[in-house]
Amino acid sequence: MKKLKRSARLVEMTQYLLSRPHHLIPLTTFAQRYGAAKSSISEDLAIIKEVFEDEGIGELQTLAGAAGGVKYIPKVGKEQALVFINELCEKLSQPDRILPGGYLYMSDLLGQPALMNEAGKLFATAFAHVDIDCIMTVETKGIPLAYATGAELNLPVVLVRRDHQVTEGSAVSINYVSGSHKSLHTMTLSRRALREKSRVLIVDDFMKAGGTIQGMVDLLAEFDATVAGVGVLVESGEVESEQRLLQDYVSLATLRTVDAKGKEISVTHGNYFNK
Amino acid sequence: MKKLKRSARLVEMTQYLLSRPHHLIPLTTFAQRYGAAKSSISEDLAIIKEVFEDEGIGELQTLAGAAGGVKYIPKVGKEQALVFINELCEKLSQPDRILPGGYLYMSDLLGQPALMNEAGKLFATAFAHVDIDCIMTVETKGIPLAYATGAELNLPVVLVRRDHQVTEGSAVSINYVSGSHKSLHTMTLSRRALREKSRVLIVDDFMKAGGTIQGMVDLLAEFDATVAGVGVLVESGEVESEQRLLQDYVSLATLRTVDAKGKEISVTHGNYFNK
Repeated sequence: MKKLKRSARLVEMTQYLLSRPHHLIPLTTFAQRYGAAKSSISEDLAIIKEVFEDEGIGELQTLAGAAGGVKYIPKVGKEQALVFINELCEKLSQPDRILPGGYLYMSDLLGQPALMNEAGKLFATAFAHVDIDCIMTVETKGIPLAYATGAELNLPVVLVRRDHQVTEGSAVSINYVSGSHKSLHTMTLSRRALREKSRVLIVDDFMKAGGTIQGMVDLLAEFDATVAGVGVLVESGEVESEQRLLQDYVSLATLRTVDAKGKEISVTHGNYFNK
Repeated sequence: MKKLKRSARLVEMTQYLLSRPHHLIPLTTFAQRYGAAKSSISEDLAIIKEVFEDEGIGELQTLAGAAGGVKYIPKVGKEQALVFINELCEKLSQPDRILPGGYLYMSDLLGQPALMNEAGKLFATAFAHVDIDCIMTVETKGIPLAYATGAELNLPVVLVRRDHQVTEGSAVSINYVSGSHKSLHTMTLSRRALREKSRVLIVDDFMKAGGTIQGMVDLLAEFDATVAGVGVLVESGEVESEQRLLQDYVSLATLRTVDAKGKEISVTHGNYFNK
């Protein structure tokens, strides 16, 4: 136990809460930690709560009663979300991203941990009050996004592999059809990676027709697990809505057109703000 | 501009600093942000600095002068590092991790974002004062660790792929020999992913003889880039030191022996505390 002044206590509590999103922390934890009365702790929390809400950092939920405590729910304010998504769209529209075949180079953006963490916070905001047991993604490029989301929601990440690895133990494999190319692929998940009846949030970096994500949904069925939601960083708007295998998802940006000849890329907001 | 009381300001500044590790923030940024005098801001920072140091959260570096400001350097205290590494060793020793062939199932641990982030903080502590331009890892299992380290050091992550992907543009491929199995593999890196002369911190989840990491070192040479350091979560102690391709690295845990028959795993500290 350490006696701290209010000012020092506020700094420490802020840090403690921020590093434990979606954890229920009993008030007694703080009271014991700082050798302070619960009433002082409540006052501190009121100050923190106000700043967190005013600054669009998140909510501080207080649960009364013996099993009560306080929970920090990361939530990006609408204004900040808009700034972030606008920046993302702008970066995605840089013409030097166009690769042969009309593909888009995104690895530089996916390689920025701060950007991935912010995108993860947006998904954590969108799915803050959904009942979820874990995050799922398939290797490779969606991984940082899945972990960023998992960190903010305090949930584990389940990683689907393309091949069965010796370090995964026994695994379940399925074949799936990639929607846009109609080509056949395999994905595989370790038997011990996912508990039965889990409610799973699927996260990926890019969705065209949705074949890969549909593959994950099919894989979930093998584990008697269900989809709690789908979040993608970028969706392709070049797919007709009725061609899309999946209708219910959250996207941050929509890639409208890639004009390789004219060197123009058109990117608009995803459906994040419509949800 | 918003006028905030000292208490609210401390909460906001703490949050602002924590979410921007290794960023130099001019005092004027805070002064303007809160409509406060620089002297008040300096007092606030002194309070935050003391708490960060006492609690093993990190350092607050103050740089004087016109180009000056404050920089939060995440640093895990020795005590917390010990607690973390002890817990990691204990978890790794659980006998039900043994897979056929004496492999170790680690995906559940690698799937915990909070654990990966803490490990990333340890690497950020070990390499806090090394001149580094980016983090590099090879898919797949080292990715969350690389991003966690990159987030704490404010550095981008460069991802080496096993195969050349159409979404990566032109790429450089090399062949390398996996040290422990003497089998030949390929790794490939997009040409635009890495600038020439970059100083690179290599991060991975597991190292046996070090063949994969040596592969990355060889790949760096193709980009005229150099190794600034190597960090691995777990190293295998079953390799004789002279067989190891790599001598200079930081490891958090050492896998001593896996006794598949007796169902016993022995794990000790890595060399983290010797560095």
